[in-house]
Amino acid sequence: MSASDIKIITVIGSGLIGRSWAMLFASGGYRVKIYDNQPGQSAKAITEIKKQLVELEEAHMLRGELTAMQQLALLSGYDDLSQALEGAFFVQECVFEQLEVKQSVFHDIERIVGKDVILSSSTSCLVPSKVFSKVQNRSRCLVSHPVNPPYHVKLVELVPHPDTAATVMDTTHALMTKVGQAPVLLKKEIDGFALNRVQAAIIAESWRLVQDGFISVKDIDLVMSEGLGMRYALIGPMETMHLNAPKEEMGIKMSQRSQEF
Amino acid sequence: MSASDIKIITVIGSGLIGRSWAMLFASGGYRVKIYDNQPGQSAKAITEIKKQLVELEEAHMLRGELTAMQQLALLSGYDDLSQALEGAFFVQECVFEQLEVKQSVFHDIERIVGKDVILSSSTSCLVPSKVFSKVQNRSRCLVSHPVNPPYHVKLVELVPHPDTAATVMDTTHALMTKVGQAPVLLKKEIDGFALNRVQAAIIAESWRLVQDGFISVKDIDLVMSEGLGMRYALIGPMETMHLNAPKEEMGIKMSQRSQEF
Repeated sequence: MSASDIKIITVIGSGLIGRSWAMLFASGGYRVKIYDNQPGQSAKAITEIKKQLVELEEAHMLRGELTAMQQLALLSGYDDLSQALEGAFFVQECVFEQLEVKQSVFHDIERIVGKDVILSSSTSCLVPSKVFSKVQNRSRCLVSHPVNPPYHVKLVELVPHPDTAATVMDTTHALMTKVGQAPVLLKKEIDGFALNRVQAAIIAESWRLVQDGFISVKDIDLVMSEGLGMRYALIGPMETMHLNAPKEEMGIKMSQRSQEF
Repeated sequence: MSASDIKIITVIGSGLIGRSWAMLFASGGYRVKIYDNQPGQSAKAITEIKKQLVELEEAHMLRGELTAMQQLALLSGYDDLSQALEGAFFVQECVFEQLEVKQSVFHDIERIVGKDVILSSSTSCLVPSKVFSKVQNRSRCLVSHPVNPPYHVKLVELVPHPDTAATVMDTTHALMTKVGQAPVLLKKEIDGFALNRVQAAIIAESWRLVQDGFISVKDIDLVMSEGLGMRYALIGPMETMHLNAPKEEMGIKMSQRSQEF
């Protein structure tokens, strides 16, 4: 495969999440162009990434089949947005979690790229219909929400805009799978997506148990880190219920009974 | 230390949970007497435990500082309840999750043991005030709820009866810590204790997202196994919130905003 055959992804923003995406895409063999609107920041990001790739390789934790130096060679930094976007088929935005900033960034990007280029946001809390409200062609827009730290946690939530084409979701799902992530598909947008809604439920019940005097903060953390977390790192809640042995009716509520173990 | 110096724990019931407790207590150097009301079952349980201890030792997963054979030598099986309870300072009940059965078992046990012997139930779903309602001296009663599989998951929820003495909770906490478990203290009883209440919250929100058409069963499981579970196997929800960077106000609810990442 010659250099010109390698597909290009542009990462917008060179902070922690931007650098992580760049490393993930490079680990999958993509050429990655990193843009930052602060002059010199994208070059600094690549220096930081180089250090990390070498450390990961030494620790035998480097992802993908290429060496650290081969992956590094796929990265380039840009202070100019037009140059950064040239040739890209996929754009992953990783700027601050400020709605107006993201709206403005995607407005600027759309004026530069072709209409088939996929526009993806890393937002953890803004629904696509807000993030992409200033984009004309929203059929190629979605949120691809990673989990921190993205290089080590595989989950990516893919959240469509109401106008997003199914092929765009499919292409992004395949891309995330190819770079070794574990994409899940939200069928329609909802505040908090799935992960933060489940996390909100966990935290709400945890707070209630602490505030009502049933357990200490330290101990409710242990309930997760020494108990449920270990389980859920292996199997999800639905599989847990499916595997759980049926219990005798004890006069307690179904919502409790169905999930004991 | 001579054999007579080794403290004795009696495990009531030789099913999966009873065998697991027996292995845990033996790993901590306690002499464990296993009782089962089905003749021959406790002997069968020890045969099964022997097999497991050997496999764990070969896999370098044996707990404690004693060898598999040294731990096995600490175990003995009984078909007679009085013999099984003789000399014990701590009794761990692991019979079926049927309230009447547990009430009856503890009633029988109390007629045999001294008033200072700690009576502990493995129940996952019955509050102590129900389990111990037929016990006269309830100051030495508590629930010690393990998580399946107890040999590999360290969490144990300690739940007091309203009458339970603080020293009984302390002694049990120290015992669980000594055998390498991670005990947490419920300050008062509540349906579901802490773990199953948090799990109920997770499952309720997961079901809602599936039933309202936001995500598939397969993908909501991945949200946990590839996302939150990995995090919670390392740190709890309170520590997660504490470590999370503050976010800009985006017009979304505090309950969501405070837990994004």
